[in-house]
Amino acid sequence: MSQGVVRAFPPEVLEIARKIRDMEIRGAGRIAKAAAEALRIAALKYEGESCEEFKEYMLKVAELLVSTRPTAVSLPNAVNYVVSQLKKPGIDSLEKARSLVVSRASRFIEYADQALSKISEFGEKVIRDGDTILTHCNSAAATGILVLAHKKGKDITVYATETRPKFQGYITAESLLREGVRVRIIPESAVRSIMKRIDKVVVGADTVAANGAVVNKVGTSLIALAARERGIDFFVATETFKFSPFTLIGDIVPIEFRAETEIVDEEMLARHPKLRVLNPAFDVTPPDFITGIITEIGIIPPQAASIVIEEMYGHPVMHESLKAVEEDFAQ
Amino acid sequence: MSQGVVRAFPPEVLEIARKIRDMEIRGAGRIAKAAAEALRIAALKYEGESCEEFKEYMLKVAELLVSTRPTAVSLPNAVNYVVSQLKKPGIDSLEKARSLVVSRASRFIEYADQALSKISEFGEKVIRDGDTILTHCNSAAATGILVLAHKKGKDITVYATETRPKFQGYITAESLLREGVRVRIIPESAVRSIMKRIDKVVVGADTVAANGAVVNKVGTSLIALAARERGIDFFVATETFKFSPFTLIGDIVPIEFRAETEIVDEEMLARHPKLRVLNPAFDVTPPDFITGIITEIGIIPPQAASIVIEEMYGHPVMHESLKAVEEDFAQ
Amino acid sequence: MSQGVVRAFPPEVLEIARKIRDMEIRGAGRIAKAAAEALRIAALKYEGESCEEFKEYMLKVAELLVSTRPTAVSLPNAVNYVVSQLKKPGIDSLEKARSLVVSRASRFIEYADQALSKISEFGEKVIRDGDTILTHCNSAAATGILVLAHKKGKDITVYATETRPKFQGYITAESLLREGVRVRIIPESAVRSIMKRIDKVVVGADTVAANGAVVNKVGTSLIALAARERGIDFFVATETFKFSPFTLIGDIVPIEFRAETEIVDEEMLARHPKLRVLNPAFDVTPPDFITGIITEIGIIPPQAASIVIEEMYGHPVMHESLKAVEEDFAQ
Amino acid sequence: MSQGVVRAFPPEVLEIARKIRDMEIRGAGRIAKAAAEALRIAALKYEGESCEEFKEYMLKVAELLVSTRPTAVSLPNAVNYVVSQLKKPGIDSLEKARSLVVSRASRFIEYADQALSKISEFGEKVIRDGDTILTHCNSAAATGILVLAHKKGKDITVYATETRPKFQGYITAESLLREGVRVRIIPESAVRSIMKRIDKVVVGADTVAANGAVVNKVGTSLIALAARERGIDFFVATETFKFSPFTLIGDIVPIEFRAETEIVDEEMLARHPKLRVLNPAFDVTPPDFITGIITEIGIIPPQAASIVIEEMYGHPVMHESLKAVEEDFAQ
Amino acid sequence: MSQGVVRAFPPEVLEIARKIRDMEIRGAGRIAKAAAEALRIAALKYEGESCEEFKEYMLKVAELLVSTRPTAVSLPNAVNYVVSQLKKPGIDSLEKARSLVVSRASRFIEYADQALSKISEFGEKVIRDGDTILTHCNSAAATGILVLAHKKGKDITVYATETRPKFQGYITAESLLREGVRVRIIPESAVRSIMKRIDKVVVGADTVAANGAVVNKVGTSLIALAARERGIDFFVATETFKFSPFTLIGDIVPIEFRAETEIVDEEMLARHPKLRVLNPAFDVTPPDFITGIITEIGIIPPQAASIVIEEMYGHPVMHESLKAVEEDFAQ
Amino acid sequence: MSQGVVRAFPPEVLEIARKIRDMEIRGAGRIAKAAAEALRIAALKYEGESCEEFKEYMLKVAELLVSTRPTAVSLPNAVNYVVSQLKKPGIDSLEKARSLVVSRASRFIEYADQALSKISEFGEKVIRDGDTILTHCNSAAATGILVLAHKKGKDITVYATETRPKFQGYITAESLLREGVRVRIIPESAVRSIMKRIDKVVVGADTVAANGAVVNKVGTSLIALAARERGIDFFVATETFKFSPFTLIGDIVPIEFRAETEIVDEEMLARHPKLRVLNPAFDVTPPDFITGIITEIGIIPPQAASIVIEEMYGHPVMHESLKAVEEDFAQ
Repeated sequence: MSQGVVRAFPPEVLEIARKIRDMEIRGAGRIAKAAAEALRIAALKYEGESCEEFKEYMLKVAELLVSTRPTAVSLPNAVNYVVSQLKKPGIDSLEKARSLVVSRASRFIEYADQALSKISEFGEKVIRDGDTILTHCNSAAATGILVLAHKKGKDITVYATETRPKFQGYITAESLLREGVRVRIIPESAVRSIMKRIDKVVVGADTVAANGAVVNKVGTSLIALAARERGIDFFVATETFKFSPFTLIGDIVPIEFRAETEIVDEEMLARHPKLRVLNPAFDVTPPDFITGIITEIGIIPPQAASIVIEEMYGHPVMHESLKAVEEDFAQ
Repeated sequence: MSQGVVRAFPPEVLEIARKIRDMEIRGAGRIAKAAAEALRIAALKYEGESCEEFKEYMLKVAELLVSTRPTAVSLPNAVNYVVSQLKKPGIDSLEKARSLVVSRASRFIEYADQALSKISEFGEKVIRDGDTILTHCNSAAATGILVLAHKKGKDITVYATETRPKFQGYITAESLLREGVRVRIIPESAVRSIMKRIDKVVVGADTVAANGAVVNKVGTSLIALAARERGIDFFVATETFKFSPFTLIGDIVPIEFRAETEIVDEEMLARHPKLRVLNPAFDVTPPDFITGIITEIGIIPPQAASIVIEEMYGHPVMHESLKAVEEDFAQ
Repeated sequence: MSQGVVRAFPPEVLEIARKIRDMEIRGAGRIAKAAAEALRIAALKYEGESCEEFKEYMLKVAELLVSTRPTAVSLPNAVNYVVSQLKKPGIDSLEKARSLVVSRASRFIEYADQALSKISEFGEKVIRDGDTILTHCNSAAATGILVLAHKKGKDITVYATETRPKFQGYITAESLLREGVRVRIIPESAVRSIMKRIDKVVVGADTVAANGAVVNKVGTSLIALAARERGIDFFVATETFKFSPFTLIGDIVPIEFRAETEIVDEEMLARHPKLRVLNPAFDVTPPDFITGIITEIGIIPPQAASIVIEEMYGHPVMHESLKAVEEDFAQ
Repeated sequence: MSQGVVRAFPPEVLEIARKIRDMEIRGAGRIAKAAAEALRIAALKYEGESCEEFKEYMLKVAELLVSTRPTAVSLPNAVNYVVSQLKKPGIDSLEKARSLVVSRASRFIEYADQALSKISEFGEKVIRDGDTILTHCNSAAATGILVLAHKKGKDITVYATETRPKFQGYITAESLLREGVRVRIIPESAVRSIMKRIDKVVVGADTVAANGAVVNKVGTSLIALAARERGIDFFVATETFKFSPFTLIGDIVPIEFRAETEIVDEEMLARHPKLRVLNPAFDVTPPDFITGIITEIGIIPPQAASIVIEEMYGHPVMHESLKAVEEDFAQ
Repeated sequence: MSQGVVRAFPPEVLEIARKIRDMEIRGAGRIAKAAAEALRIAALKYEGESCEEFKEYMLKVAELLVSTRPTAVSLPNAVNYVVSQLKKPGIDSLEKARSLVVSRASRFIEYADQALSKISEFGEKVIRDGDTILTHCNSAAATGILVLAHKKGKDITVYATETRPKFQGYITAESLLREGVRVRIIPESAVRSIMKRIDKVVVGADTVAANGAVVNKVGTSLIALAARERGIDFFVATETFKFSPFTLIGDIVPIEFRAETEIVDEEMLARHPKLRVLNPAFDVTPPDFITGIITEIGIIPPQAASIVIEEMYGHPVMHESLKAVEEDFAQ
Repeated sequence: MSQGVVRAFPPEVLEIARKIRDMEIRGAGRIAKAAAEALRIAALKYEGESCEEFKEYMLKVAELLVSTRPTAVSLPNAVNYVVSQLKKPGIDSLEKARSLVVSRASRFIEYADQALSKISEFGEKVIRDGDTILTHCNSAAATGILVLAHKKGKDITVYATETRPKFQGYITAESLLREGVRVRIIPESAVRSIMKRIDKVVVGADTVAANGAVVNKVGTSLIALAARERGIDFFVATETFKFSPFTLIGDIVPIEFRAETEIVDEEMLARHPKLRVLNPAFDVTPPDFITGIITEIGIIPPQAASIVIEEMYGHPVMHESLKAVEEDFAQ
């Protein structure tokens, strides 16, 4: 493919790509929606006349967008949703193809807007009046559920961990307190000793793997372990576009290790050549520890994650060859 | 919608509704079939001429029926099966609509009739010659499996719990003994001490939640816990119309607490103001404790319950908006 | 030994033996004290003049008493305490021997009288204000703890199981209610579903084995299993004379199976030759399930039971031969 | 159906059937492909002219092939894939029917050829540089993954069990060593003591049941148990045509017991009439012990096995009657 | 007892009591030794002439010392060791009594001085060359073991948790780094994700209860839980004078909750009336989670803690009455 | 000490030392008895006249004997039993000292002779009529129990593992078959799949550590793990002189790795430089997996091992200094 095609990307698209790369646009949901918007713009502004060239061009835009933040699974999920149908048979005119991209991009954006409120609605139902709920770090999906439960008049108490080293637990505490929710802050180290008081755990997710394992802020799996010791329900709240289709084919979700200086100051590190700091951003909670994943399409058992992935994004390899014959005869 | 429509319900329909409400019609299966029959009658007796009015009318009948027993999930499942297709495109004439309702109602009734025997057939295969099986309370599905295994010449011994406070275990024992099956009655308290003799546990279900948790007669989850301690297979036998689609969106299966006087006499309660009795009708067995759910469509792992629900009754929310575009282009 | 010796047993001793055998004297504590009393009487009324004959005679009385109720470990424990020192060197006159028996018998009776109140005192300290405690069957030691906690002003709620088939839970409930304790009765089958509300379990014991396993009313081990699932403390309250020295040398505590007709009426049994009822009186709770055994000598971990047995009653075999040399040289 | 039809089988088909029966053709994959080829030949050589007769004839061939090795699930899976669509509506001419069989047979063979390399690709991704991996017996799928990881430059160490009594572990060791992989051989008895050094376990499968349980060489479940004790990931590598649709309807995977003389010589057996040898070929690893099943269609959680089975081979019973109405109206 | 006796306490004794109360003397070991020293001084400076009065006086001093810090178990343990023998028979002259107190006080001080180095010696042996060890908070006993292992030439890596909220982990890290030990600092939240790299956990203790449960810095039990999940050995290093004899008779080790402002600043607390902070200083690690307790008298299984307590400090209640008779006759 | 003393060792003593070193005398029991015999001879043949010199001489003989086989704990245990009392006060004449050594040596030999039959007696009681028992490798103590149970008329079936790589299971099988016991041989890999048929596991021990962990033939801990999964009792049969006092002070029981060529032939090893074989002789079964240790002094819970060690051999460090004062005053 010639460079000329790439050069023709509209400036709005390039600007969105830059903002995602430079982390001006942040958060799995916002990134996904921005990418869909970029694809919509690219489709509308395409000035060629060949259906084939359009498809090629759109795939180039898709590639560009996906490359901006390689570890956020919501990005390829959004892009894939918008452009993947272009390969289907029957998309044989420029008009059909452009219309397909625009429709799907709009649909995705609208969908993402509604997902969080659906999650709150579904998740709110598992909270009972009088419940004490433990949460960790700061998740919009988890907080949304707790606020809605409070607004519906349920008398809840929320235990929020501090969440070392960035203390995002204080953001969670503040946003719950602002809504009038009763909050208890604890250090992570107290999780096991206060677990007897907890009725349910609700946390967010960064990525959901195909086997239902949940990648989330470090400490999540330790809390899940302590919850399981006492038989306490552990819920994960997340949009389905954080489900990773790549894990279906063996890709391992990479765990980012952040700067040592988030934890120990440079002076101490300089003084002690034998000192290192391990600062993993995330950990992996096994599916057996999770009661249910609260998504915008319902509350699913973690073991059904692979099915959701297949339904939502298509299956990356699937047994197409086996199915194809069947389709030939069905026509 | 005017009250006039409601008034026009045929007397047979009203009579069925009354019988369900007054518990003259009992048992998840019988209730479901009676509701389907009521809908069939309502459709056949409808005397209007407008397709739209018919649909509205049928939904009113559906609402009435569902309201008669709010906690039995088989009821809305049956009703939903019969009327949900009315909303599909293409049902554009009164004849099509009426025919749709009548067909689906008949199909449901026939289906329910066959389900129990299918369950017996599938479940019978997991019983081996010489097995000792533990059962709890009185479940037609579980008993059917055991009787069929016996009839096929397998030499089995069944341990039946008494099932306090109503002693339904005696009904189970009687129906097995009548067929010539060897029976051992035990009090619930002996479950752990006799577990070493047990090869398999087979019980029924009142409701199956979307995460595969099974709501059944209180004591079931305690038996499941004791079975798991020894690595003994635990099977649940149930028709799929006891799977609850509502739990997919966070609805919690309510646990009914029955009268204190089923357990303690009024005199004792009157004498002691500081005395209360807790008499829960059901408990919840977590999916991890369950080897398989034996249904009329096969033996499924509990974690696949959400998939069955989606396939059987459609998904209550689903990602319709995402799918819709695709369908537009497929047409 | 001649029958003449046996004939010489004082009538009071024979009467006590009869009463234990006929279950007119019941309960591990009362039986033990009555046996000690019988030995004391026998010693005081002994009319011979030979020290050797006295020892032989006392062992005969001991044998008689032990034979009256072969499965109650408190009986041989009491008897053994009273007469075992007769074999020690230095007991070489009738006066010394008689005085030894009388002293030890009195000491034992006094000891048993104080044991229950010591257990209440020690056990009461593990109960916190606001606790909800589950108990099973009817144990004087367990009930004593709960009543004392209540009397000391702790606001407690006690869940009492019914305890099929004899419903001894009602006796427990009545005695707690009489003292003003708040009580909740539940059927055994509800144990797992209400376990989340429970802070501690306190039960009694019939026998404590050398490895710390506790033999108690059937259902106890099932409750212990459910408590462990949620990490809830499980305490056993019992006098140390229920610790069985015989289990140290491999004796298995026999589990009594009671009459089928305690559970199913004769008519039903007669009607169904293929029906049997299993009615075990006790079950065995493994030491791993037990937080602590509350005794009159303190709260011990179950794994220390063998040490207590050795200290209290001497070791039945011990490495006497190895020790003997040492003693030779110490003299 | 007349015997005449059976007599008309082409000699090539009969020869393939014989070779499978006589174990000249061995291995789940090779058997499956040979059966597909036999069906293709049978279809091409069919000389009749009736579409109905052709279908009947093909089912007879299918029956013959399936009967040659009743316990290898890959065989009925292959045959079923090739012929099951014949029953679908619309296959109404001989040409259509023959073409359908030939197409599906070719498709299956091609598919099987590609499956192993897909499994290697997906599985290789879960291996990290520096990993120590334990494997058991000799599985082409598992070995393929390890060799690919090594070829991609990952520095791995493989622990291979000897695999009594046939010592297939040596075949695994040899094929890995040939490729330059570092290998450690251990007796099965050392599995628990070396488990601390292991990062992942990867084994093959003989059959995958509908609930995700894996039937594989005896010892597999013991290794899985030891892996779970330390929280070590346990992967199973297998083509999906080893998934058993029959288990969905309650069929139990039969465990073959092999000759006593594989373990103890005849002389010893003859000498001791009270001696028996138990030599089970396989054992069953429960789904809870398995992190993921690496197949050619992706890595799935074991609990999704029933879904894969349904998708791949159709559902043996399904709720056809319920679905049928819908289809009537969809037409 | 008259106040006059109390007034006669020597000024050095009163000064030591004040220093303990005002936390000028801190740390379980230093407190214990100071108390023993105070008793020694009091005995030496006693100017009366009556043996009985001396005993009374010493008990008063003991009482005073114990009252200075009611929650540190090492204090009553030290005091009890020094004065408890005064009650024994045979201590019938002032000289004997004074000499007894002085001897035992000196003995205790010397003992405490040697205990830490014994612990290092015993504990060092469980560390192997190449081990990676996790520790928590800052314990002299645990650190001593690690430093000795390093000095003996073992190549070890130590993971030290930060230990929120006081960050005592940095003290541990500094003292290990100073000795040349390789150190990795992690936040508590990363404990489960790095556990696979750990070979052993070694922590200190504040109190050891009679059932072997260990009270230590909050977070300890969470780490123990994560270690147990992977089957990793968990050692506690502590002097035996931190074993609590009071727990033998049911006393519960009280968990101190520290100031909210150690975690959240006052401004935030003032701003949010619905906000509370839970800042427990300690948590309780159950005996089942502990491989061994490394003490100066050897490495004991946690379940033997009650035996150690009994041997070291005598048994607070014991079956004295039962034993007394025996002693009568032994004399 | 001069070499002259060493040269004076009697030839019989030197011969016994040589035989132990050259493995002509094998087996923990036989080694221990031979060492005691050597000490007895040395004492009798000592020709000096000084008590002090005698003690020094005996310690030299002791040292020599202990050095012959450094890893067999029964050796130092026997030697320590015989000579340790020499250091006690009061052994102040040559005659007393010699007599002490001779007495204790004789006592030990007699004791060892009786231990196995005591173990059989105690262990036999835990076997019930009809039991199926699994054993591993070849242990005299375990086999003795099984044979006695059979002789007492209990109908038992014994499963014996082959025990790779040396197949000692066949020795066990032969000796049981010779006595008429029904035997089933299985490969180790089948342990988990046949575990459901097993009522109890009984194995021997090489060493028992102070925390109750048992070192025994590799595979033992894997069998214990599989037994625990099903809640099956796991007994270890062993003389107490295999209890290791050294583990009390942190010594780790070393695990011997045996020759690679016991498993793989030299040719294969030579051919593959990247191949290694791991052939550990023993593994370590944690105390939590063990129901009881059947010894000649009774059946003890594994957690009481440290107490047994202390009682039998004295405590290697003990709080002597603390106790000494007490003794001063007791004299």
